[in-house]
Amino acid sequence: MEVNINENERIDDLQCNGYKIIQNKDGFCFGIDSVLLSEFAKDIKPGNRVVDLGTGSGVLGFLLLGKKNVGNIIGIEIQKEVAEMANKSIKLNDAEEKFKIINDNIKNVISQKLIEKSTVDIIVTNPPYKPINTGIINDNTKKLISRHEISATLEDFIEVSEYLLRDKGILYMVHKPERLVDIVYILRKNKLEPKELRLIYPSKDKDANLVLIKAVKGGNSFLKVDSPLYVYNENGTYTKEILDIYEKNKN
Amino acid sequence: MEVNINENERIDDLQCNGYKIIQNKDGFCFGIDSVLLSEFAKDIKPGNRVVDLGTGSGVLGFLLLGKKNVGNIIGIEIQKEVAEMANKSIKLNDAEEKFKIINDNIKNVISQKLIEKSTVDIIVTNPPYKPINTGIINDNTKKLISRHEISATLEDFIEVSEYLLRDKGILYMVHKPERLVDIVYILRKNKLEPKELRLIYPSKDKDANLVLIKAVKGGNSFLKVDSPLYVYNENGTYTKEILDIYEKNKN
Repeated sequence: MEVNINENERIDDLQCNGYKIIQNKDGFCFGIDSVLLSEFAKDIKPGNRVVDLGTGSGVLGFLLLGKKNVGNIIGIEIQKEVAEMANKSIKLNDAEEKFKIINDNIKNVISQKLIEKSTVDIIVTNPPYKPINTGIINDNTKKLISRHEISATLEDFIEVSEYLLRDKGILYMVHKPERLVDIVYILRKNKLEPKELRLIYPSKDKDANLVLIKAVKGGNSFLKVDSPLYVYNENGTYTKEILDIYEKNKN
Repeated sequence: MEVNINENERIDDLQCNGYKIIQNKDGFCFGIDSVLLSEFAKDIKPGNRVVDLGTGSGVLGFLLLGKKNVGNIIGIEIQKEVAEMANKSIKLNDAEEKFKIINDNIKNVISQKLIEKSTVDIIVTNPPYKPINTGIINDNTKKLISRHEISATLEDFIEVSEYLLRDKGILYMVHKPERLVDIVYILRKNKLEPKELRLIYPSKDKDANLVLIKAVKGGNSFLKVDSPLYVYNENGTYTKEILDIYEKNKN
């Protein structure tokens, strides 16, 4: 299927199952976060019903379709232009049967019953990392909404996850370690028990700069903290584990 | 100062400032947990007023006296025989002026006002790791109380810490990663904000088996996750970082 792209868009090869992804040259482009999250989401089973909260260009959806053979995935994206771009990528990859985009604020999932309560097996999300009123606000609106909690807060993302997940359904999230206390606190308050953490470190002797979190709806209290994942070797090349993850995607 | 020890006790060299420590041969002997916690507690200043909740044989107190030159330290220990052993170590090391033991349940700190509210700079604690009714209950009572939350729960330890600490006072805790969600949740609920974590891994590619936590009374939300600490190399020898910590204690 051929699609028309705008001049501010580009098509990238996702290096996964032959999928291609349309991204906005000036917007938020997918990074290692999504790739690591899709790899961390080990308990996704073929046929699972998946929702991606804040789907952006749809990268996570394509990675899960390609790697996990999920049953279907719904991506919710507030920005109209970004949602249209994701829809074009879905057409480009002939994935319309399995991958749908809802162009709305995730907060409306509950108030407007966009998806039925307690019907989802897996939620994946790469939410905006920074609370509103903190850090340098990017003057590009698309990047702003993708990076800061302008339209929905961490609490909104977690409340919607709790609403959508079936009992023992799983939430997979990637976020910044600086927010880990907020995340853990709000998860437990919403009966989504954090069960597994993996910290990502840029390299040896550095502080962690990403965290992967698995939470189970109605799970009991017992956390597993996985071995650390390093992105770069000391000489600046990617570590073997990172190269292996990218290589695995291709096959 | 010479002291008499019982036949079920032994004297060990703490390898720190010449201090010696009396331990019960059948009880809970100090391990790497205390050594790592004393090293992690970087914001302890000379002259600080310190309380150790669940002090056991007193090892943490001696490490902090030796390494940090704290002003004074109070150790609270519920087990009479263990508290007496700690007192003998204090005499043995001529540390009576700076190190006092209170033989009581930490829960009585608040109800019986054993120490004045909001007067402590630093709390250190290596609390029992296992919730009551979980795991294999050790049939030795001393080990039981040291390892399981028989006499006081994690929540008790944290509530007492909040009571004792001054504004911006610091709690340093070592615990098991499996309890990290409990810890973080109860800390924030009690206005002790987790500010720094360090995960300890037995070796490469293993899950974490200890966690060091720094929380600040009235601190704001922003967590730092330090580089991981490995205990053993792949060939089973101690890592350089562990050897350096033990070496530093001696000097």
